[in-house]
Amino acid sequence: MRILGIDPGYGIVGYGVIDYENSQYNVVDYGVIETPKEEDIAVRLAMIYDSIEKLIEEFKPEQMAVEELFYFKNQTTVIPVAEARGVILLAGIHSCGQIFEYTPLQIKQALTGNGRAEKAQVQFMVKAILGLEKVPKPDDAADALAVAITHANFNQLIIR
Amino acid sequence: MRILGIDPGYGIVGYGVIDYENSQYNVVDYGVIETPKEEDIAVRLAMIYDSIEKLIEEFKPEQMAVEELFYFKNQTTVIPVAEARGVILLAGIHSCGQIFEYTPLQIKQALTGNGRAEKAQVQFMVKAILGLEKVPKPDDAADALAVAITHANFNQLIIR
Repeated sequence: MRILGIDPGYGIVGYGVIDYENSQYNVVDYGVIETPKEEDIAVRLAMIYDSIEKLIEEFKPEQMAVEELFYFKNQTTVIPVAEARGVILLAGIHSCGQIFEYTPLQIKQALTGNGRAEKAQVQFMVKAILGLEKVPKPDDAADALAVAITHANFNQLIIR
Repeated sequence: MRILGIDPGYGIVGYGVIDYENSQYNVVDYGVIETPKEEDIAVRLAMIYDSIEKLIEEFKPEQMAVEELFYFKNQTTVIPVAEARGVILLAGIHSCGQIFEYTPLQIKQALTGNGRAEKAQVQFMVKAILGLEKVPKPDDAADALAVAITHANFNQLIIR
């Protein structure tokens, strides 16, 4: 199964594409979508929407997993980040069709067994699980891979 | 000039279409887009996006005015409301092209001369300015008309 993981944002959106078959993970691609600060939010939202559609067109993920937001985490940016998350979900439903959402707690739990794990520990586990030589950079891309891995794990549990 | 005003939400989105020419206001249409509670947020976002596109197609507004959000107003719903606002802005940029944003303070100020006016006073002024017999219902539609009127006023100032 091919999974597209997304770490939502409006300045930087992380993405990670993995294949998960027979309990084996394979990294297909990862990276970030960036939008220019000087543009209006509506223009940046359109850029994000187009980029997600292109990713789905290119990699043809069967399912998409998107991290959930919590307002108490970053109160000053929660509104534009949620606006960006809205267009990401829309691109997902328009192009991919199958969307799943995971909380930061579920992601930390799935990757490390500890819902309160530090960011560095989660990133170390992304590297370890995917058999990479280094932690993927930037952080947003590693976070997106973590969401994709979480979805693979949850699916595995459901299938069993 | 034809203006589409939007009061963002994910359960209910208010809209109001007005014509503004030679300091005269004319109501073209107003109402709400509603999405079913039992659907996933991504499906509801897609419904909102489609409905806004249809409104723009039907009424062909030259400009669109959308109310801004503040996280401290409704902390529990700010994330889904902002997600909905994201797809509303996206539909605007895809179909209308010209989007303007106004804060609740600007709207109250434009309609009543008082940035701290009560909701009822703003709605009374919507009725008075547009020459309606009654306050438009539901509230979300009246709020959307208020955003459209605000934009007409701001434009008027700019043109002068």
